[in-house]
Amino acid sequence: MWKSLGARSESAGPRAASGRFWAVVLGAAAGLFLLGFLIGWFAKPTDKKTSLSAHEDMRTAFMAEMKAENIKQFLYNFTQLPHLAGTEENMHLAHQVQAEWKKFGLDSVQLVHYDVLLSYPDDTKPNYISIIDEHGDEVFNTSLSEPPPPGYEAVRDVVPPYSAFSAQGVPEGELVYVNYGRTEDFFMLEREMGINCTGKIVIARYGKIFRGNKVKNAELAGAKGLILYSDPADYCAPGVDPYPNGWNLPGGGAQRGNVLNLNGAGDPLTPGYPAKEYMYRLDKTSGVGLPKIPVHPIGYHDAESLLRNMGGQAPPHSSWKGNLNVSYNVGPGFTGNSTRKVKMHIYSNNEVRRIYNVIGTIRGTVEPDRYVILGGHRDSWVFGGIDPQSGAAVVHEIVRSFGKLKKKGWRPRRTVIFASWDAEEFGLLGSTEWAEENAKILQARAVAYINADSSVEGNYTLRVDCTPLMYSLVYSLTKKIPSPDEGFEAKSLYESWYEKNPSSEYKEVPRINKLGSGNDFEAFFQRLGIASGRARYSKNWNVEKYSSYPVYHSVYETYEIVEQFYDPTFKNHLTVAQVRGGLVFELANSVVLPFDCRDYASAVSNYAHIIYNLSRNHEEELATYSVSFDALFSAVKNFTEVAASFHERLQQIDINNLLAVRSLNDQLMFLERAFVDPLGLPGRPFYRHIIFAPSSHNKYAGESFPGIYDAMFDIESKADQHEAWEEVKRQISIAAFTVQAAAETLKEV
Amino acid sequence: MWKSLGARSESAGPRAASGRFWAVVLGAAAGLFLLGFLIGWFAKPTDKKTSLSAHEDMRTAFMAEMKAENIKQFLYNFTQLPHLAGTEENMHLAHQVQAEWKKFGLDSVQLVHYDVLLSYPDDTKPNYISIIDEHGDEVFNTSLSEPPPPGYEAVRDVVPPYSAFSAQGVPEGELVYVNYGRTEDFFMLEREMGINCTGKIVIARYGKIFRGNKVKNAELAGAKGLILYSDPADYCAPGVDPYPNGWNLPGGGAQRGNVLNLNGAGDPLTPGYPAKEYMYRLDKTSGVGLPKIPVHPIGYHDAESLLRNMGGQAPPHSSWKGNLNVSYNVGPGFTGNSTRKVKMHIYSNNEVRRIYNVIGTIRGTVEPDRYVILGGHRDSWVFGGIDPQSGAAVVHEIVRSFGKLKKKGWRPRRTVIFASWDAEEFGLLGSTEWAEENAKILQARAVAYINADSSVEGNYTLRVDCTPLMYSLVYSLTKKIPSPDEGFEAKSLYESWYEKNPSSEYKEVPRINKLGSGNDFEAFFQRLGIASGRARYSKNWNVEKYSSYPVYHSVYETYEIVEQFYDPTFKNHLTVAQVRGGLVFELANSVVLPFDCRDYASAVSNYAHIIYNLSRNHEEELATYSVSFDALFSAVKNFTEVAASFHERLQQIDINNLLAVRSLNDQLMFLERAFVDPLGLPGRPFYRHIIFAPSSHNKYAGESFPGIYDAMFDIESKADQHEAWEEVKRQISIAAFTVQAAAETLKEV
Repeated sequence: MWKSLGARSESAGPRAASGRFWAVVLGAAAGLFLLGFLIGWFAKPTDKKTSLSAHEDMRTAFMAEMKAENIKQFLYNFTQLPHLAGTEENMHLAHQVQAEWKKFGLDSVQLVHYDVLLSYPDDTKPNYISIIDEHGDEVFNTSLSEPPPPGYEAVRDVVPPYSAFSAQGVPEGELVYVNYGRTEDFFMLEREMGINCTGKIVIARYGKIFRGNKVKNAELAGAKGLILYSDPADYCAPGVDPYPNGWNLPGGGAQRGNVLNLNGAGDPLTPGYPAKEYMYRLDKTSGVGLPKIPVHPIGYHDAESLLRNMGGQAPPHSSWKGNLNVSYNVGPGFTGNSTRKVKMHIYSNNEVRRIYNVIGTIRGTVEPDRYVILGGHRDSWVFGGIDPQSGAAVVHEIVRSFGKLKKKGWRPRRTVIFASWDAEEFGLLGSTEWAEENAKILQARAVAYINADSSVEGNYTLRVDCTPLMYSLVYSLTKKIPSPDEGFEAKSLYESWYEKNPSSEYKEVPRINKLGSGNDFEAFFQRLGIASGRARYSKNWNVEKYSSYPVYHSVYETYEIVEQFYDPTFKNHLTVAQVRGGLVFELANSVVLPFDCRDYASAVSNYAHIIYNLSRNHEEELATYSVSFDALFSAVKNFTEVAASFHERLQQIDINNLLAVRSLNDQLMFLERAFVDPLGLPGRPFYRHIIFAPSSHNKYAGESFPGIYDAMFDIESKADQHEAWEEVKRQISIAAFTVQAAAETLKEV
Repeated sequence: MWKSLGARSESAGPRAASGRFWAVVLGAAAGLFLLGFLIGWFAKPTDKKTSLSAHEDMRTAFMAEMKAENIKQFLYNFTQLPHLAGTEENMHLAHQVQAEWKKFGLDSVQLVHYDVLLSYPDDTKPNYISIIDEHGDEVFNTSLSEPPPPGYEAVRDVVPPYSAFSAQGVPEGELVYVNYGRTEDFFMLEREMGINCTGKIVIARYGKIFRGNKVKNAELAGAKGLILYSDPADYCAPGVDPYPNGWNLPGGGAQRGNVLNLNGAGDPLTPGYPAKEYMYRLDKTSGVGLPKIPVHPIGYHDAESLLRNMGGQAPPHSSWKGNLNVSYNVGPGFTGNSTRKVKMHIYSNNEVRRIYNVIGTIRGTVEPDRYVILGGHRDSWVFGGIDPQSGAAVVHEIVRSFGKLKKKGWRPRRTVIFASWDAEEFGLLGSTEWAEENAKILQARAVAYINADSSVEGNYTLRVDCTPLMYSLVYSLTKKIPSPDEGFEAKSLYESWYEKNPSSEYKEVPRINKLGSGNDFEAFFQRLGIASGRARYSKNWNVEKYSSYPVYHSVYETYEIVEQFYDPTFKNHLTVAQVRGGLVFELANSVVLPFDCRDYASAVSNYAHIIYNLSRNHEEELATYSVSFDALFSAVKNFTEVAASFHERLQQIDINNLLAVRSLNDQLMFLERAFVDPLGLPGRPFYRHIIFAPSSHNKYAGESFPGIYDAMFDIESKADQHEAWEEVKRQISIAAFTVQAAAETLKEV
């Protein structure tokens, strides 16, 4: 070919020169062709390649966009009026949030309503508690409301302290002090002290466990009424003044809160289904989780009056004594031959009212059908200075910052959904109903849910509860965020967090907690198996022994308590915004999902050892009933190996192979789903996560391997020991199967 | 650059010529560069683009590869010995299938075992039924086995006719004839005729409904034993000889079968979970769905002896009479003052044994993480000439043909999974346990399940039961397959099918039935919501009134009955192979999934009208209890509109946009999933499909809107009419919600 081509040449030069010449020309031509080919080959874009540096630049821009001053302004704006769920004020705030999110630049912002069962005091018949004498005359009555904080005296529509969904009734009887009202407290009373609570009115101090669990325990003990109060031991930090001079709870303050035992059902009248107009509703009296007895909360001034003359047995242990100047005798009844009794007057009504979620979205570019959700509630008991508006203000700033980037032409890879939930305080109703309505879509498409309630409950360090899938993301993100703490200037959040609260389980990392419940991630994580996490600034749990924060759910949760005591510069709020917003950004924008399945394997392995060690308190029965954890350990081992292989494959992925990336990401996304058992935990059909569930004995806490845990917990109280251990064995096998099945989802397809 | 390059030239020619020359050279160079660039640009594959014609060529090659002669050989091979689940013979066959599928070229073929509860007659104490006299002496005994078919006299291990999972026992009592043992038959006895079955032994003829439902009805009626028999009216076609001279059931033949009421639970001892070594098992006596009374099947010769002297009332209607030469008096007891009674002797044992599924795969090229499953069972009661081996032989030929294509270098776009299920006859155990073990993976990745039990139950025309999503695929595919029917030479299968069995619901298409249960698609469709379908050659249901086919589950289901009577040329088998294989091929290889969501909308709309019309039998109560179907119709309307829009978007898709195609395909795949309610149907946690479920009164039949249907069915029998209608309303709202939620999944993401 070359030769014959050369032979046809018309060149006049000498043959040898001509040959060389054509060789050069042809070589050049071939070279040019090759050059062209190569440029053509490589110039052609194979993908909308998300360059790593572009991603990092955008994250930096996003982080820099968020400002403490904005969060402060939003908080002020959100806390000037009460925003109780089901009231006009909270609907107005929904409209305001909708309008502002639109202005910020979201693609769409919708109000989504549900008609759910709520509970309110009767406007004309206040709730209170009396001491009555032998004639039934009221010799002492608890206060009907909290003294208003300065500056708020003229605000109308402050709902007085009450226990939402309390049964109505006017029970009277002898008083029994039941400490925190925990399972073990009632065991102490019944088994050690021989005190029967049947027909009594019991008084429990707030703290340690969710108040709904206290109600359930009181009902099981036979009580006909329950009084909840805040003891200074649990709601006053030493050396701190009561609000407004400090951040402690004043004696006239009381903690509102719902007293349901929903176990994840959402609206009590439509368990499992969204409370839309067309949905069938249970009869109002047969709703899920409604207490059967009257319940009412009081402050420690009023509590002192009730407890002052308690008779009966002395407290069984110093741990039963709070910080009031009273004996903490448990009763029943008052000292001496007092014929005085306690009478509750509870007239609250349950009624179906409309609630409003605000749902905003930014559509993803590459994977619009993958969702990252940031949600937090908007409704508050009164002003919501901390709960929830310190969180909602942060969400607002995150939305504004995403909107700012979007206005500059950027979009995340995946769709981001922002949610302002309603009626969280009444049982996580807004978020649960929405999750119920959109369950199918969320199961197929949701990558992660980040929860955003109160941003601050202290100012010591960061607190994170999340799925093990997010551990590495949380650690790497916090290494990129500057610490707001004094003494940690120029250091990272990770560093101050690690120094102040190192993990007790894992070496050289900060502590991360298990997800329990009591907040809006519940339906997403516990029911649907969507990877979830939450973050806030918190106190030093090692030294600050009071529950939550002192003014929790009282009228004293104002803007000013945050601005004057909790976070005057709002630097901690900004840090929380960077953590929550940064998580959302990374989850929505990383080409490969920033989940590490190896951490899930480590966590599950750790939990398996914990539950096994717990079982060894019963060595004898383990042998008698042939209880073995071998299958669980074998599944855990398998999961660990498969997770390691998966992670290795992930490192070798061709990031430009869109379908290969999608496929591995789907395996990561569906891993959390794999831990959900459609049959649910025993007696709790809406808690379906086999690795994590709220404790049956305290909704706030997350229990690992809850099925096994509960079965072992119940052994003591079951008559038939064979049956009790059979249930333990059944739960172990379900856990082993679930871990094994999860491992299978990570294998090469 | 070009100039300076020219300037360095050593050419000796004149300037002008030189200029032109260089223009030519440069032009050529540029041209070559451009050519190279363009070739580089276009030569680079943007995708593994599946060209439509390549797809069609491969389908043609695949269809042409399948041969009737091979199916015949496979059937012969599979039917020489009994292959009862839990026996060595059936394990051997599993190994054989595994070896052959490997040889055919599948990527992997695994045996997957489970340890499940099975049931067998006692080898030493045969089951039988007697007529006893007043001394308890047995004056008549039913036969202990069927006379063997010619050529099979020496075969060992033929299990005698029995009702698998029958309770053990030797009840004696008066006999009552209960016709088919349907709900309406017992209503007739109890309400119209005043006959109480409590303490009686009842005899029911086989047919109309699943035998397990007859057992449940007998138990509810208080019977202490149930005899099942095959009446010639139901198991003999007119003018046809009994086997071996024809294909009718001989008088000594009897129908085996399980008598469970599993409602989709799978292995009775591990409901909801796979029966692996590590799984907790219920006590053998408390398994799911086990009958509480002895049950036994007999042939019509023995039945005639039992029925010959029946006394009591005459049959209430001619529909209660079969074709035996007896009165069909219903009893109780025998004529005159006979003191004779009937006594059952049932000694069968339930025991846990190991079963084996064979699971083979061909890995997909483009979407290996999307699965199309072809499954059918391998276990048979005896020789399985029709059930299941006429189906298993077809699966074998499909596997061989896929393997042949694969050996030529081809692979499907998606992964294909082939399954040979075990223990179908004992309650769909092999398929259900596998679906339970792999539920998470299947939910995330399974596109469709095609079922392959018996290929022939007649030789008249095609019969298809499938999800509405597959209607259009089934129609388009059958238009490409030649009809095997006489008189339809050169016409398509679609044409003969349509002419012989046109739809009564839709214009100008052949009939397609709803999926019920009684076969291995159950766990995939009813529990997991995976689009499913089944196809076989069937009889003319309009004129052939016998149930199923006459020798069903008897020893007379041999290779010869197929080869001599049902399909001597195996052309119908080949047609069924082309339908089943063609469905798998299209589902696995089409770039866009061949599902039409508009057909689902039409079907659901149709069902809504049917259930509404049914409700209008109670016009008065609808008003009294404010029962409205508005929400359901509104949801159906919405679904219809959304499905139309979805379909339009699908037409406009850029088929080279891999992620866009994947995203729309995911919406199609997850549509069937959207109809699954995690809470299940009332009292049936493993039947979770809201649009389709097996009837509560006959497992074989598929009911549409089963929740509403059952609630309305129960109205008659409920004391509290208010409560009964509240349940109807609840079910309507769940149906409306589900249809609405399904519509949401089809909206643009």
